Amino acid sequence: MRIVQKYGGTSVGSIDRIRKTADIVESELKAGNQVAVVVSAMSGETNRLIGMAHEMDPHAHAREVDAMVATGEQVSAALLAIELRRRGIKACSLNGAQAGFQTSGSHSRARISNVESPKLVERLENGEVPVVTGFQGVDAEGNITTLGRGGSDTSAVALAIAVKADVCDIYTDVDGVYTTDPRIVPEASKIDRISYEEMLEFASLGAKVLQTRSVELAMNYNMPIHLRSSFDPIQGTLVTQEDMTMEKAAITGVAYNRDEAKVTIMGIPDHPGIAANVFGPVAEAEINVDVIVQNVSAQGHTDITFTVPRGDFAATMELLKTACGKMQAKDVAGDDSVAKVSIIGVGMRSHTGVARKMFETLAREGINIQMITTSEIKVTVVIDEAHVDRAVQALHRDFGLESAG
Amino acid sequence: MRIVQKYGGTSVGSIDRIRKTADIVESELKAGNQVAVVVSAMSGETNRLIGMAHEMDPHAHAREVDAMVATGEQVSAALLAIELRRRGIKACSLNGAQAGFQTSGSHSRARISNVESPKLVERLENGEVPVVTGFQGVDAEGNITTLGRGGSDTSAVALAIAVKADVCDIYTDVDGVYTTDPRIVPEASKIDRISYEEMLEFASLGAKVLQTRSVELAMNYNMPIHLRSSFDPIQGTLVTQEDMTMEKAAITGVAYNRDEAKVTIMGIPDHPGIAANVFGPVAEAEINVDVIVQNVSAQGHTDITFTVPRGDFAATMELLKTACGKMQAKDVAGDDSVAKVSIIGVGMRSHTGVARKMFETLAREGINIQMITTSEIKVTVVIDEAHVDRAVQALHRDFGLESAG
Repeated sequence: MRIVQKYGGTSVGSIDRIRKTADIVESELKAGNQVAVVVSAMSGETNRLIGMAHEMDPHAHAREVDAMVATGEQVSAALLAIELRRRGIKACSLNGAQAGFQTSGSHSRARISNVESPKLVERLENGEVPVVTGFQGVDAEGNITTLGRGGSDTSAVALAIAVKADVCDIYTDVDGVYTTDPRIVPEASKIDRISYEEMLEFASLGAKVLQTRSVELAMNYNMPIHLRSSFDPIQGTLVTQEDMTMEKAAITGVAYNRDEAKVTIMGIPDHPGIAANVFGPVAEAEINVDVIVQNVSAQGHTDITFTVPRGDFAATMELLKTACGKMQAKDVAGDDSVAKVSIIGVGMRSHTGVARKMFETLAREGINIQMITTSEIKVTVVIDEAHVDRAVQALHRDFGLESAG
Repeated sequence: MRIVQKYGGTSVGSIDRIRKTADIVESELKAGNQVAVVVSAMSGETNRLIGMAHEMDPHAHAREVDAMVATGEQVSAALLAIELRRRGIKACSLNGAQAGFQTSGSHSRARISNVESPKLVERLENGEVPVVTGFQGVDAEGNITTLGRGGSDTSAVALAIAVKADVCDIYTDVDGVYTTDPRIVPEASKIDRISYEEMLEFASLGAKVLQTRSVELAMNYNMPIHLRSSFDPIQGTLVTQEDMTMEKAAITGVAYNRDEAKVTIMGIPDHPGIAANVFGPVAEAEINVDVIVQNVSAQGHTDITFTVPRGDFAATMELLKTACGKMQAKDVAGDDSVAKVSIIGVGMRSHTGVARKMFETLAREGINIQMITTSEIKVTVVIDEAHVDRAVQALHRDFGLESAG
């Protein structure tokens, strides 16, 4: 097998951790596999470097911040290569330029356009272990770029695609994706296999195990991602294309996000363009609007309700109160103690009545649903934050997830 | 004027120091000059990185140590570029690869073979300030290399030659070369102008203001070096080719080095090959032999005396005592409390009696000369370390250096 492994900041966070990481690399080599590694910076290092840049200038030039920050991975990659060499393994560190990671020129959030390193495959076939810096590349002019937070996952998937790896192993401090948060439901079980689409829904709900872009990229090239723990490298969760032959459970997991606030604009005159009037100023303030519900119009007026991240609640209320008069709306109301709960699963496509079952469960628990949105493989409700634990527990039980995984 | 400036670790050692360094860059630009900058790593950073590499593996692979250590300059270059940008100056950091520094492949002590960056001159002509990482480059295979301690001086001179600069300003924490150490002779004066050859002699005597290789390179291409203080950027010392039209003083300065030990092998049978027998094992142990004196043979036997750095004294004695029997030498004696005192000056070429005057001065002070060596522009004596201060003071006075500079 040809494997690309990715290790996050904690896995290379100290001399000791790097030695343990080298153990995993070595055991894969001993098992007869070819291994390329992608590393993040040592945990804390990226923040230290950004802090220094911003102490110099809070509006530090993005090109230069990228050049600084990119050094973090160069250090961790070299340290891991040193440890592998110490064990007699032919390893060498490669930074973004050396590994041929070509990106767009947008600093601090560049996108990988190509990985062009003809020598990488040759190195792998010679039993060498390239240790590549994650999170970075160079643009067409040779400027150093970074991919944005979590970008190392995307680097790993891109490298796996470039060298035609069999799998991209992403090592982290959790051992996979769970049917729900084990802190809320102790019976939550690890999901052995999950589709790219489901993983994207989990990721967008704040399951911070994988960067969304890395899953999209893997999906586009059908590169399997194996999410696993570097503390205990047992079987984790395999993120892969939907397996049509398998009998599907109705849902795969229950996700939630407490970081939500709800804003309602009441009694807006209902005519074309009102949504633009409402969301224009919010978008300009770079506030990320999530669930949006517009009520059926009554007497020429309507209500619009939407959710924003809780940290943006005050700014959003301020903004809309100002805009209220201009929109001829009656009032603006808000609630910053709501939460989202979602059920996710490709099985929904073939199982009917999944949403109804969700609503029945919540009704039986006496939990009021404030908003609802659905996608093909997800049903999301917005509820009072106080009821999150009870909702997640009841849904996990009623959909029979204790026995899943 | 087109100027290449080099700043050492203390000049970029903190946010505050970097702002002061940017002041100097800005003032040169305001004076209508074109400026390119070469920086060292923030003081302490190189040692921190090497320490980490050696904690991982005391015999860490040199290629990887270079990759780690090179990040130090990348960070300081980016920080200075951030500060210059904050002031509205078009600046950009460039690492060794980006600036086109091509080197030999010998890691940790690579030599610059070429600086190939056609865009640098264009940038300078556009009023941009390239901030280039010192101390590093890439070899023909694209591996990151470093030049060895003090290599940033050489980087700066190489860059100055490549962009055809008028002068290479080397900023440090001293404001130039002095006629002697002001801690010993308070009347020591700054030398306004010194030849490359004299500078090389000062440097080899432990005047750690400039790396020897940088002076050799500047001499080969006749690139003037202006040694000056970043704390107080007044006129420093200009290192340049010998000016034939100037009236020369007999000597330019008095230098000394206390870090010396003396070893004598007595009564070696005098036949061809004895020097090889003596210095072979010493060279193999990578001990740097300096002054060597061989006495005239008497009754078929001779004595050889030489100096080594004091830190290598014990090892040298050990080595030679072992080799003594093989060489059929009578005995080995040593003294680890000697020092070198030198007078240096291109004026010696045209002034006669300089050496004699030196010996007379020392004789009058009652200082015994243990060894003597001379070059065209230098006379060096080895004396008891206890007499160094008195020797330096007397020579500085007798050669009239208080009024020099």
